[in-house]
Amino acid sequence: MSRVYAGVRPMAWAEEALVLLDQRLLPDRVEHMRLTDVAQVAQAISDMVVRGAPAIGITAAYGAALAARKRYAESTVAWREPLEHDLQLLAAARPTAVNLSWAVERVRGLLSAIDSDPYPVLLDEARRIHEQDIAANQRIGALGADLIKGPCNVLTHCNAGALATGGYGTALGVIRSAHEQGLVKSVFAGETRPWLQGARLTAWELIQDGIPVRLLADGATSHAMAEGQVQWVVVGADRIAGNGDVINKIGTYGLAISARHHGVGFMVAAPTSTVDMALSQGADCPIEIRDEAEILSFGERRVAADGAQAWNPVFDVTPAALVDAIVTERGVVLAPDAAKMAALMAADFPA
Amino acid sequence: MSRVYAGVRPMAWAEEALVLLDQRLLPDRVEHMRLTDVAQVAQAISDMVVRGAPAIGITAAYGAALAARKRYAESTVAWREPLEHDLQLLAAARPTAVNLSWAVERVRGLLSAIDSDPYPVLLDEARRIHEQDIAANQRIGALGADLIKGPCNVLTHCNAGALATGGYGTALGVIRSAHEQGLVKSVFAGETRPWLQGARLTAWELIQDGIPVRLLADGATSHAMAEGQVQWVVVGADRIAGNGDVINKIGTYGLAISARHHGVGFMVAAPTSTVDMALSQGADCPIEIRDEAEILSFGERRVAADGAQAWNPVFDVTPAALVDAIVTERGVVLAPDAAKMAALMAADFPA
Repeated sequence: MSRVYAGVRPMAWAEEALVLLDQRLLPDRVEHMRLTDVAQVAQAISDMVVRGAPAIGITAAYGAALAARKRYAESTVAWREPLEHDLQLLAAARPTAVNLSWAVERVRGLLSAIDSDPYPVLLDEARRIHEQDIAANQRIGALGADLIKGPCNVLTHCNAGALATGGYGTALGVIRSAHEQGLVKSVFAGETRPWLQGARLTAWELIQDGIPVRLLADGATSHAMAEGQVQWVVVGADRIAGNGDVINKIGTYGLAISARHHGVGFMVAAPTSTVDMALSQGADCPIEIRDEAEILSFGERRVAADGAQAWNPVFDVTPAALVDAIVTERGVVLAPDAAKMAALMAADFPA
Repeated sequence: MSRVYAGVRPMAWAEEALVLLDQRLLPDRVEHMRLTDVAQVAQAISDMVVRGAPAIGITAAYGAALAARKRYAESTVAWREPLEHDLQLLAAARPTAVNLSWAVERVRGLLSAIDSDPYPVLLDEARRIHEQDIAANQRIGALGADLIKGPCNVLTHCNAGALATGGYGTALGVIRSAHEQGLVKSVFAGETRPWLQGARLTAWELIQDGIPVRLLADGATSHAMAEGQVQWVVVGADRIAGNGDVINKIGTYGLAISARHHGVGFMVAAPTSTVDMALSQGADCPIEIRDEAEILSFGERRVAADGAQAWNPVFDVTPAALVDAIVTERGVVLAPDAAKMAALMAADFPA
């Protein structure tokens, strides 16, 4: 249980810089990007070099450390205001995942107590956030696996894996843990248009760990459930509202409707850094609408007819009523609602 | 009403040959393929040069005429047995759409009365099937539009348009007719992985006719419904069972579940040549599983990690209970069931 997952990592701190695995190039090429400046970090988040709610929170924390180093080097007395500007830049890099602002808030909370160089303090904090996320994932994996009566097949969507977190993964953490215990025979991975995180990232990750994976078109998931091939849908989350509504990759909501229709379990695996108690319900969450070119083209190749328009919301809202379990590092919430979420977040978490 | 749609046509008979628009190349290139031999026709159906249940039925009828010409040229006395072999080849070119065997049966029914050259008789029959399909589509369009209280937005899946039929289209026939009457403001088209018929074909067709179209990822359709942006889902069918179950492009079933969840209307538009009274329920229909390369790659470009497998069923079954209306050229069946389907198919259709 206390063994640290030694597999895929989307980010690392090395030689005084943040090193990001460029997820846009997977699975064709494994290339890393070395970032030394906060503006580069914000751009990398915005451009989806790194993606996944926990991963962009950790990345932002390292970005804050880079910002602190630069601002303190520019002025040992007037670094606070420009650093605050940098933190705002990071928080605004993507709108939907709350982990980004959670990480920025956590960094910001340290600043008032600092009276000398903020860089070492913020770098320590980023490392702590990173380590705690991996530990949280491993705990989530164990708790989620306890819900699965196997051996069975599970279906996941997008990539809520090691690549989306500090390492190990949320939904894929549950799957890794359950597979290790012989509870998961094989994984269906929805390819997840438009970015194909399922095909490019989830399949790649699971193959690294020797877990059998079959891709399917997003439109084929209901058919798989109708055939009785799926016992659990396990997904991550980009934000969880105070009432248990789940904001996650576009397509998650349709899976939840279909899972309920077929009596298939629907599990959301996410650290409590993804829970936003200030958001009372999912409908109030800003949903990022990305460029229509992501739909009209496939990679660099245009596929749609000239003159066609597209609508490209990249997240959707799954009402708590369709969720069977939210699994966090603090514990499991079955049939989530506002009272249960409040109790979870109020609980003293055993450190 | 009697005006014949003069737009897109996927096939034509010209200079003693069958000319097919190569739909695999759309929307990049508009190229035609000239076929003079039945084996070429069966291959073109199998390779999806032409697709869409009514269109492949019509194509097979022209293919039968080509076969008759060749077999009678080879032997004016012993043409029946080799022609029967050709008909079986055509019927087996794709397994799911019933229009293929329907067209072959219709041709086969003529043969016993022929005592000279079968070619002119079969060519006449192919032309008749083609013309009747267009007329049926126009009637379906009018009947389906009558169900739509507009102005509203509709959502369609795959391509059940002029390209999938003799011309005009089934689902897109309804949309064309409703748009002409001011009942449809704009169309959402699911891109329809893996072949992207929505992006490549439906968008292209609707743009030709000046109908506003917005593409969306298949996973985004439930979110569009949750936002109240869709009033009707209108799709075609590859086969309709005797109890009203609908076999159609993979993804249709999930749309039907989601439409019911949101109180959005779900309409299936198809000619009665798509109804298979010999199939008592959808679960008994063979579902074509195509090559996993269609999921693992995008066009020629591999997207999934090496070692990943895929599951590629290309149709699914929507139970009649999720269907609000089946619209045929003979009339509309609301809340279909076995008794209503039998009544529809027994009715004398006014010629």
